[in-house]
Amino acid sequence: MKKISILGSTGSIGTQTLDVIAHDPERYSVEALAAGGNIKLLAEQIRRFRPKKVSVSNKDHAEQLKHEFGDAVQLYWGHDGLLETAAGTDADLVVTAMVGSVGLEPTLAAIEAGKQIGLANKETLVTAGHLVTALAAKRGVKLLPIDSEHSAIFQCLNGERQEEISKLILTASGGSFRDRTREELGDVTVEQALSHPNWSMGAKITIDSATMVNKGLEVIEAHWLFHMPYDRIEVMLHPQSVIHSMVEFVDNSVIAQLGNPDMRVPIQYALTYPARFKTPSEPLDLSRIGSLDFRKMDEERFPCLKMAFACGRAGGTATTVFNAANEVAVSRFLQGEIRFLQIEDIIEQVLERHELISSPDLEQIIHADGWARITAGGIACQ
Amino acid sequence: MKKISILGSTGSIGTQTLDVIAHDPERYSVEALAAGGNIKLLAEQIRRFRPKKVSVSNKDHAEQLKHEFGDAVQLYWGHDGLLETAAGTDADLVVTAMVGSVGLEPTLAAIEAGKQIGLANKETLVTAGHLVTALAAKRGVKLLPIDSEHSAIFQCLNGERQEEISKLILTASGGSFRDRTREELGDVTVEQALSHPNWSMGAKITIDSATMVNKGLEVIEAHWLFHMPYDRIEVMLHPQSVIHSMVEFVDNSVIAQLGNPDMRVPIQYALTYPARFKTPSEPLDLSRIGSLDFRKMDEERFPCLKMAFACGRAGGTATTVFNAANEVAVSRFLQGEIRFLQIEDIIEQVLERHELISSPDLEQIIHADGWARITAGGIACQ
Repeated sequence: MKKISILGSTGSIGTQTLDVIAHDPERYSVEALAAGGNIKLLAEQIRRFRPKKVSVSNKDHAEQLKHEFGDAVQLYWGHDGLLETAAGTDADLVVTAMVGSVGLEPTLAAIEAGKQIGLANKETLVTAGHLVTALAAKRGVKLLPIDSEHSAIFQCLNGERQEEISKLILTASGGSFRDRTREELGDVTVEQALSHPNWSMGAKITIDSATMVNKGLEVIEAHWLFHMPYDRIEVMLHPQSVIHSMVEFVDNSVIAQLGNPDMRVPIQYALTYPARFKTPSEPLDLSRIGSLDFRKMDEERFPCLKMAFACGRAGGTATTVFNAANEVAVSRFLQGEIRFLQIEDIIEQVLERHELISSPDLEQIIHADGWARITAGGIACQ
Repeated sequence: MKKISILGSTGSIGTQTLDVIAHDPERYSVEALAAGGNIKLLAEQIRRFRPKKVSVSNKDHAEQLKHEFGDAVQLYWGHDGLLETAAGTDADLVVTAMVGSVGLEPTLAAIEAGKQIGLANKETLVTAGHLVTALAAKRGVKLLPIDSEHSAIFQCLNGERQEEISKLILTASGGSFRDRTREELGDVTVEQALSHPNWSMGAKITIDSATMVNKGLEVIEAHWLFHMPYDRIEVMLHPQSVIHSMVEFVDNSVIAQLGNPDMRVPIQYALTYPARFKTPSEPLDLSRIGSLDFRKMDEERFPCLKMAFACGRAGGTATTVFNAANEVAVSRFLQGEIRFLQIEDIIEQVLERHELISSPDLEQIIHADGWARITAGGIACQ
């Protein structure tokens, strides 16, 4: 039986992780759940999966749950609660499914405690890839990717040799606005941006898909997960999201991983790796799909991707700041404060004002992250 | 340095194997070459690659070469010569690139002598899969597939577990006549049949592609190579031949191997497995190709594939006879004796007359093979 903690249990990846667990309950036990403010759903999850520890965002929420569950679960809250559910349990594996760079410290704590990581929080590696990968190597901890693209690459690399990789090819659906020109993006609404053609995901990642920031974060994540220089990471437009990503080897042989867009497959693979078991997903039927299409990525159309590559190459706090500025800009867009194209303007302006630190420690990263948030929040847009 | 023998060195796979060797000559030595009647090309190959032993089809050819090379190579001929180049050298690996069930005995001899096999002669496994795989297991010999489909599956299985395979999906280009109905096949010429849309191959395999016999042989080969029941082998039409084949696992994750149609990639992989090195092939550019298409296989349109599955399920000498009848029928078509659709008529009639032996020994197989050839040759067509 595998013991699992889930950080971000009420979000899209969190609920699907519990779906996978519910599909084969003999195989797993849920040690801990951490969530934000969706107390109603969290209470249902506690009733169903009986975790030992639960953390919520604040004391009020914790007391609400205390009222229902009494001593049946140990309740925590806030930053310390997140660290407790990440590192203070008997879990073998911690699924980091929260959104944003808030995932960094609990992930580091879980690695320090020797937990395997089911990595769904891509901002962790974007924000502090050098610290996270160094600590994981030191503690002998595997970072098992849950993102469909990285799970695909991880699977394509099964039984292969690092030094024989020629390049990684990440596929990108193009997001909600893939068929619009830049000129047609001026007045798009939040609702339009939230309607992703292939994947049903949380709001933040759906907006990130439309701006192509998501693919940029994935490029940086791939750099750290697979020790791959940026010159050997390519992004290709593939509207159907059936090939989840590919690896080209030095002999020009390409290995790809395919499937219907269903996050439960990569989630389960991270939970059961290196074994595979049945999933609640539908088998892929390529003859029913008919065609798979591919187009060159256009960096002029998607300047955020170009910025992500540039930040990745610059290294240090550049990617931290790229990510933090984006988080704030997306949040401002979702709240109706700014227009869609202003997301990239804000990121660009914050990056312009940033003074890069090359090998930042954790404190410097947290500082750069905070500075970028304040700066991004303060940029006036009309 | 890897020591290689090539049986069938002047054919399509043989010459491409030497291409691969010439591309990286420090890595290989050529121990032996065996060829049929193309003495001029064989002499060039001897001059260039300096094998120790050479075998040709008959004594006249051997004497011709003796005249040019004197004692610089040891010359052999006929059946015994083939066995000598297969098993009587210091080769680490024998590439079986001859066409037809003539490959069976030399392959068995090479396995018995402990040589690894670069298996391009699919008829070997079709004719006597149970004997070949049992001997390979006993002698600890790896059968390294060279067919692009089987090399693809072999690569997709790297680092994976046999018991987690859900099915093998072989792709089929559809051959020269994929866009014609059965009604439009009545009067096709040899020349039309020899014009394959994607691959440049020998005459026999090109005709086999047009009849879909080739895919049938590959299904049977896959059954033996990957220990897979026929119910878990699927064939899918994929006109571009870019996805060379796929494996679906129990979790519905699909791993595929892709590349431009270039046999030098799977050939080299068999020579260097498990390592990969640069090949003289072009890298795949999916955005240039644009689309990959997939269609359900239509067994009514391609009855030879249906027959192959039926023979595979029947087992024993059924596949031996299927293959031998086809070899004769193709040869009769290439000589202008019969029409294209009569290839399948002949196979069908020979199978109808055949009395199956369930677990044949080598002698029974050779007998069934001979019987099928005589029978197929004697069927009158108009």
